[in-house]
Amino acid sequence: MTLLPDTMKAAVLGEPGQIRVRELPVPRPGPEDVLVRVRRASLCGTDVKIRSRDFFADGGPPPGGFVPGHEYAGVVAAVGETVEEFQIGDRVVTEAHRGCMRCVTCLRGGYTDCLNYGRRERGHRAQGMTVNGGFAEYALNHVSTLCRLPEGLSFDAGVVLTTAGTVMHAFGVLADVLAGARVAVLGPGPIGLLAVQVARELGAEFVALAGTRESRLALGRAFGSDLVVNVHDPDAVAQVRTLSGGHGADIVLECSGAAPAVDDALRMVRRGGRVVLVGFFDEPVTADLNHAVMNGITIHTVRGEGAGSLARAVSLAGRGRLATEDLVTHHFPLEAVAEAFDTYAERRGDALKVMLDISDHVPG
Amino acid sequence: MTLLPDTMKAAVLGEPGQIRVRELPVPRPGPEDVLVRVRRASLCGTDVKIRSRDFFADGGPPPGGFVPGHEYAGVVAAVGETVEEFQIGDRVVTEAHRGCMRCVTCLRGGYTDCLNYGRRERGHRAQGMTVNGGFAEYALNHVSTLCRLPEGLSFDAGVVLTTAGTVMHAFGVLADVLAGARVAVLGPGPIGLLAVQVARELGAEFVALAGTRESRLALGRAFGSDLVVNVHDPDAVAQVRTLSGGHGADIVLECSGAAPAVDDALRMVRRGGRVVLVGFFDEPVTADLNHAVMNGITIHTVRGEGAGSLARAVSLAGRGRLATEDLVTHHFPLEAVAEAFDTYAERRGDALKVMLDISDHVPG
Amino acid sequence: MTLLPDTMKAAVLGEPGQIRVRELPVPRPGPEDVLVRVRRASLCGTDVKIRSRDFFADGGPPPGGFVPGHEYAGVVAAVGETVEEFQIGDRVVTEAHRGCMRCVTCLRGGYTDCLNYGRRERGHRAQGMTVNGGFAEYALNHVSTLCRLPEGLSFDAGVVLTTAGTVMHAFGVLADVLAGARVAVLGPGPIGLLAVQVARELGAEFVALAGTRESRLALGRAFGSDLVVNVHDPDAVAQVRTLSGGHGADIVLECSGAAPAVDDALRMVRRGGRVVLVGFFDEPVTADLNHAVMNGITIHTVRGEGAGSLARAVSLAGRGRLATEDLVTHHFPLEAVAEAFDTYAERRGDALKVMLDISDHVPG
Amino acid sequence: MTLLPDTMKAAVLGEPGQIRVRELPVPRPGPEDVLVRVRRASLCGTDVKIRSRDFFADGGPPPGGFVPGHEYAGVVAAVGETVEEFQIGDRVVTEAHRGCMRCVTCLRGGYTDCLNYGRRERGHRAQGMTVNGGFAEYALNHVSTLCRLPEGLSFDAGVVLTTAGTVMHAFGVLADVLAGARVAVLGPGPIGLLAVQVARELGAEFVALAGTRESRLALGRAFGSDLVVNVHDPDAVAQVRTLSGGHGADIVLECSGAAPAVDDALRMVRRGGRVVLVGFFDEPVTADLNHAVMNGITIHTVRGEGAGSLARAVSLAGRGRLATEDLVTHHFPLEAVAEAFDTYAERRGDALKVMLDISDHVPG
Repeated sequence: MTLLPDTMKAAVLGEPGQIRVRELPVPRPGPEDVLVRVRRASLCGTDVKIRSRDFFADGGPPPGGFVPGHEYAGVVAAVGETVEEFQIGDRVVTEAHRGCMRCVTCLRGGYTDCLNYGRRERGHRAQGMTVNGGFAEYALNHVSTLCRLPEGLSFDAGVVLTTAGTVMHAFGVLADVLAGARVAVLGPGPIGLLAVQVARELGAEFVALAGTRESRLALGRAFGSDLVVNVHDPDAVAQVRTLSGGHGADIVLECSGAAPAVDDALRMVRRGGRVVLVGFFDEPVTADLNHAVMNGITIHTVRGEGAGSLARAVSLAGRGRLATEDLVTHHFPLEAVAEAFDTYAERRGDALKVMLDISDHVPG
Repeated sequence: MTLLPDTMKAAVLGEPGQIRVRELPVPRPGPEDVLVRVRRASLCGTDVKIRSRDFFADGGPPPGGFVPGHEYAGVVAAVGETVEEFQIGDRVVTEAHRGCMRCVTCLRGGYTDCLNYGRRERGHRAQGMTVNGGFAEYALNHVSTLCRLPEGLSFDAGVVLTTAGTVMHAFGVLADVLAGARVAVLGPGPIGLLAVQVARELGAEFVALAGTRESRLALGRAFGSDLVVNVHDPDAVAQVRTLSGGHGADIVLECSGAAPAVDDALRMVRRGGRVVLVGFFDEPVTADLNHAVMNGITIHTVRGEGAGSLARAVSLAGRGRLATEDLVTHHFPLEAVAEAFDTYAERRGDALKVMLDISDHVPG
Repeated sequence: MTLLPDTMKAAVLGEPGQIRVRELPVPRPGPEDVLVRVRRASLCGTDVKIRSRDFFADGGPPPGGFVPGHEYAGVVAAVGETVEEFQIGDRVVTEAHRGCMRCVTCLRGGYTDCLNYGRRERGHRAQGMTVNGGFAEYALNHVSTLCRLPEGLSFDAGVVLTTAGTVMHAFGVLADVLAGARVAVLGPGPIGLLAVQVARELGAEFVALAGTRESRLALGRAFGSDLVVNVHDPDAVAQVRTLSGGHGADIVLECSGAAPAVDDALRMVRRGGRVVLVGFFDEPVTADLNHAVMNGITIHTVRGEGAGSLARAVSLAGRGRLATEDLVTHHFPLEAVAEAFDTYAERRGDALKVMLDISDHVPG
Repeated sequence: MTLLPDTMKAAVLGEPGQIRVRELPVPRPGPEDVLVRVRRASLCGTDVKIRSRDFFADGGPPPGGFVPGHEYAGVVAAVGETVEEFQIGDRVVTEAHRGCMRCVTCLRGGYTDCLNYGRRERGHRAQGMTVNGGFAEYALNHVSTLCRLPEGLSFDAGVVLTTAGTVMHAFGVLADVLAGARVAVLGPGPIGLLAVQVARELGAEFVALAGTRESRLALGRAFGSDLVVNVHDPDAVAQVRTLSGGHGADIVLECSGAAPAVDDALRMVRRGGRVVLVGFFDEPVTADLNHAVMNGITIHTVRGEGAGSLARAVSLAGRGRLATEDLVTHHFPLEAVAEAFDTYAERRGDALKVMLDISDHVPG
């Protein structure tokens, strides 16, 4: 085994709104753990809420010790005593959730909805949310949260695949092949832009993308959207309905997190169709749920990349079928983590995926 | 074949808000139809919206010719040339929806969400909504919308079973056995009170019922609720969560149609649990859908009794396992249809199921 | 409407084993029917059993009047009075099954397993099996059995898509996205070779193909198989297991119809995996079903292209993602139908899809 | 914590076919474990194969140390440091399987089909099969394999509920409510007799039971079978088909483990119906799988009580709805374990469930 250093650089939460880099001990893997030397980590909307501590019902962990970050990729640096699935040196990508695996939800396959959420002592871990995550030189992961990164995929690509895993899970909960489906995607952020690609690759007949920023809608077009609409256009819903065969889309993925998007989603989907809510909302949502009842519309939700869907996304990308690096707009060294947060939170330079470059100097 | 009369008495829509009885021709069955001599028919909330014409996007049918009524039972009076499933004299109960059976939704089993809803010429029929229904001496039904009424069940019981079919469909879309489930039901109207019974009979571990009217909650208790709560009690949600194992109910059925109930449902259900919306809402609903996303809660909806669930409800009742007649609070002759509507709409005498007695004088 | 001729040329069953061409009246569409002027039709294994009459439990229809053929494509020549979905001149491809749409199986979406199979008077129709099919200048189809053929796809391609629809249904019954799945396909006939392609296009991580004929295995390699094995190789099962991650394939499609293939399928699939039987067996199958029980393996079956899966296959092909014409090895005019049958049945010239060219002379 | 003794009496495997009682150390719970003081344990067919060592592909564990037994109930004697779900003194019933909870099958909810089956070091445990089981005074269980035994249920009842959990899982994999279903059960052993009861309680319209022993068929009748048939009666299949509506049963559970029963099951089930194989077969099965393909029949399998179905069975029993103790025909003290095995294996005295009484003398 490579000799591990005792300490590492890590970004830690400070007072609400603050994040800074300090030295922390390098964690040691338990029997089912893998220690990852992080190479790249990216920011997502949840990280911004974690920085402000709005994410935590109880105010969150004390300042100075908690490492956020749930989207990262790197190299296996050490493995726990039961781990044969991975070897030191393997390039890996990670997912965020490890369930307790003893509650009824976990036993039935729903580990992202673990009834022991947040209870580390019972086995639940949400990287960068309830346990230390990946904005550090090393991160500790349960073996079930790792996938091998295929040759030919960069660490940048790998990090984006965590988000693609969420998209894959959103399609997975529909329990059907996607071939021939008419799909509408709301919100051209990283999730939505990956949803367009995954839908197209899994055989959708028609993919519409709705948003407001023209630059992002243009990206959607480049990634294979058959139709892009601006949600401010009063005709947006009608266009989607008309072009998806007249009856509305079979499937609508809400990836924007904007409250009015739910009503748009319900209007875009056909009778008997399905809506998947993927985005997190900042406020209560007002929607015509009677329309959903009268039309037999099901509203699914996903929180992250459950049911092994990270592996599915990695597989698709490994075949060269997802344009992941194109979503990376910014790179910062770990030391500039505060600036990276500001860039992402304020969408400076039309930021999509903002990447932290970590450990590149560590001999590999 | 019994000689059919040429005309019959039927309740027809008049000007908005009006309903009256007149003579209409007795319809003749097409090749796949069954003519039902109606014995009992009951009113549901939709009928009130049909009377006021709020139900119809386009104002509805011209006054004087349209017969509402989608909950009824009776005796087979004539059958179409291809019908061998039923014979004249059979006692039958009915469901409301016949799909076009040619759109993709119908082909995949979702006939209550038919893409050709309202298009009679393509085969879709919704009894008493888009074609003439059962508030008449005779009604015409597609053969697929009928079930034989088991011996020992009265026509009153049969009519209530249409509502029980909706409840059965609400549980059916969850695609699981109910044994051991913790269930909460919102809204102690006929649908909710039947949901309590069906949940208990199908093996639920725990059934909570939430509402406001004490008299109805008492009925729920009699029908097997393990817990009844008044939704005005600030502790109502917490009680349901605590008593359903601490994590919340596995399944919540929203049967009240009250907009605030959606938030209650989302708070009562556990992580990874399922909510089924059965009630129709009169107004937009404001709810914390972010809570649904963060907790992986799925929101199903059902519109009526799809997927052959009427037959399932009839089967359960035929084994003596549903108290259906107890929900019938009022009887009126067809001639008093206007009073029956007023009684139901205004909940006079704490009306639950209000029944029209029809054709009892017709020799059978 | 184009003036329809009174008579047409049609291939009809004669005495067992005989098929010949004669004049028959051109059928007229009922209210929900479409009359197709057939351009291409292909033979499948079932047709050979129909010719020999082994297909029919009761000996089959009297000689001289029955037209086989359930894989065909053509041009809409006339439509029934309720049909707006298609117009005269539309290029269409067909599927075989129309359910009665009134039995419980049809109501729940399983029309290929209609409980009224073979009962024309109740609405069930299986083209070329229980009602006249497509080995004729004109064929009558229920509107629900047609899909528009996308621009850029030939009639040859369209005919092959009926088979691709079966493959799509086989994956569809698994109720999951295919992305990342390890798939093994047994039997490199037209079904198996299409299964390789569909699996790859829907995102399978790994696709193995097992068979005996080297020429066909080579085709499988060209269509994207990651591994081809000869089932006579004692190592065949082990190779599939090893290369699909060591635990076996997630999904195995049995498309050969060879009885020993079932045991191979059970050995190739992983614990908790799924086998789909698509091929028809000529004899009883002996298999180690205890292995299935001990390993939680589910055995699905499909009969043809249910659940709207033809449309899904057409959609995928319309995007240029299926090599269908490459499976067509022979063309015959309708007049040479007997020779076409012999060619196909005896696999002369390594026949895969054998095509009848029909109506090309009819002005379009 | 109660002071635990250092040693206990345990039945251990000897040479093939031998089982005897000896002293073994009392195991100590790991962090997620519960130590159960066993009160009752019962024998199942698998135990007989374990005694003969036919169960083990590799010959099995060395003589003298391995404790079989996977059906048992008792009292919590000690808990691991993370266990709050149970407290010392709780009466509990157990299930056999704990998955590794890190392979893809476990992550998706299929822990009885764990890809790391038999690998204790990776977390998989099958009580009495791959790790020591319950034919001892104390047994060690992962917390996820326990359910609290409701008041009013005896330990005898509790032990039988492990078998009922298998039945519940068999119905659970069908992913539907059972209300109104026509069910046939093959094999009137303990599994089959519980299947009759569970089917009836979950709302089946009709339950047929097929077997050979009149005494057991009589029990089935007492437990609520609507029809019992002797499989040697050439009319048996026809009777089931006729009485389940003419089309065959919706669901057939094969619980006999007799190879010819598979063909009976396929003949009894309707088009589009489902067969669940629950029994273990001793030999290859020959069956008309073509009939399954032609009729769209799915063949599910279950191995034991996955997906939390033990809790469901316990819930149903806790409501007084299962007659479990009636299946217990014999009791033996642990010291007579060899005689208990012989009694069960040879069906002496028409043995159904044969019970070992353990630890009754231990102060509780």
